[in-house]
Amino acid sequence: MTNAMDRLYGQVADKGHVCLGLDTDYTYLPEDFAQDFSSKGEAVLAFNKAIVDQTLDVAAVYKVQIAYYEAMGLEGLGAYSETLKYLRKKGALVIADVKRGDIAKTAEMYAQAHFAGDFEADIITVNPYMGMDTITPFFPYLEKGKGIFALVATSNPGAMDIEGITHGGKKVYEMVGEMLQKLGERFMGRCGYSAIGGVVGCTDPQATIGIRRALDKTFFLIPGYGAQGGTAQDMGRYLRDGNGGVVNSSRGVLLAYRKDAFRGMRFDGAARAECIRMRDDIHSALKGE
Amino acid sequence: MTNAMDRLYGQVADKGHVCLGLDTDYTYLPEDFAQDFSSKGEAVLAFNKAIVDQTLDVAAVYKVQIAYYEAMGLEGLGAYSETLKYLRKKGALVIADVKRGDIAKTAEMYAQAHFAGDFEADIITVNPYMGMDTITPFFPYLEKGKGIFALVATSNPGAMDIEGITHGGKKVYEMVGEMLQKLGERFMGRCGYSAIGGVVGCTDPQATIGIRRALDKTFFLIPGYGAQGGTAQDMGRYLRDGNGGVVNSSRGVLLAYRKDAFRGMRFDGAARAECIRMRDDIHSALKGE
Repeated sequence: MTNAMDRLYGQVADKGHVCLGLDTDYTYLPEDFAQDFSSKGEAVLAFNKAIVDQTLDVAAVYKVQIAYYEAMGLEGLGAYSETLKYLRKKGALVIADVKRGDIAKTAEMYAQAHFAGDFEADIITVNPYMGMDTITPFFPYLEKGKGIFALVATSNPGAMDIEGITHGGKKVYEMVGEMLQKLGERFMGRCGYSAIGGVVGCTDPQATIGIRRALDKTFFLIPGYGAQGGTAQDMGRYLRDGNGGVVNSSRGVLLAYRKDAFRGMRFDGAARAECIRMRDDIHSALKGE
Repeated sequence: MTNAMDRLYGQVADKGHVCLGLDTDYTYLPEDFAQDFSSKGEAVLAFNKAIVDQTLDVAAVYKVQIAYYEAMGLEGLGAYSETLKYLRKKGALVIADVKRGDIAKTAEMYAQAHFAGDFEADIITVNPYMGMDTITPFFPYLEKGKGIFALVATSNPGAMDIEGITHGGKKVYEMVGEMLQKLGERFMGRCGYSAIGGVVGCTDPQATIGIRRALDKTFFLIPGYGAQGGTAQDMGRYLRDGNGGVVNSSRGVLLAYRKDAFRGMRFDGAARAECIRMRDDIHSALKGE
């Protein structure tokens, strides 16, 4: 079976490890660009499209964080929908970062919402706190080639409040990771990864190595690069033979045009330059190890 | 300080414990009603409005489950927005059941999305899996009279996969409940409950009594009545002096018109009859104890 992670694996092999996060806040747009549009939604959409056009060959996948669009209300969700459609039309893989998680019938509704219709994405993020029966309603879509990334160990300061609680020497996130990998066994792809991936943030090297070893069939979505303090070396420990994970950067790319290094470039050119810099940074770290 | 839970407390004292769940799937609508509308969104909105009109004096609060509307795409979210606006215009309290949970800046965006603008609600549900720093971004809104219900112990079959993991004799959900109650100390209301409530599902009587005792300053949103098997007696154990909790019913009310007991009634009249039956069922159980 070819699953969603096989497609992602192929993209990584071709283009490197960059997951470009379109967490686009209206305030991120250059003023002289934004002023040409009659609504915030239109401006955000145009900003996204310009960045996508400049990065299709250097970003393995795009992650669109729905919260930024929800915050703009119905108009924002229109821009969200159009961003997803544009990406898919261009042949890009799309992760909808929605972190939904709910019981049976409600989870079915979320699956329908984000794997079909106005908000269709290839892969979505989910929150497993309520248990594994919040994951199973996505199965019919995994069978049809969609994928999910479930939260395992996140990179925020409070991540260990719950994820780090221990039982019998194991942390909650380790147990969650193992439950998810077990669920994923029936959705294994050609490349050795199941359609159920995991979100794993930057943590100490020892923990990272442990996560990678235990979750050997789990593709990783890795936040925390750059702005959140993670280095390319940190990220490299989550990969296997140079694949099996993508590294997200959102503000680092969207706001690259404000950095001294890219002075004088338009925002979309700067985004491309930052994607290339990040891609090469990760490649170098992998070669160095 | 008067907080969101004070308003909810007052509603419960006046109207009883029913939280009416507007988890409205288009297929729930009577065919002869639905056919009069040119779009699914319009039909769902009209269905909701008719039920609201019939239940304002017998439901303490309304809970709108966004997943059902997201599943209908942009049109569905238009109906969601209009449903919230209608409820607030009528003076009803509204819980947006969105179960969002994400880090710092993203959580701020969710707060903005659901406490202001097109999707403004009085109280929203949140998922704490990623840690307590996913809760703090809602604080500025709690100071302004908004409230949250955070997931503590849910009522689904897989709830204990993660929530039930033990450490030092305590379950994850107990630890989560205590962390939340501590966070809520700065948002205490006149009635003795903080603006940070908890979602607690039906569980065994012993566990229920333990949760209520430990979380004595936490208002509860209690799912699981009826369709999910919970009885009024089960629910009663979560209350204190007859207040401090609301009991949700969604399909039980929305589909009351299909029950033999309400044969011949229009869907909105049947919804009202079921709300009254449920309210009185809980009242009787409380008196009996």
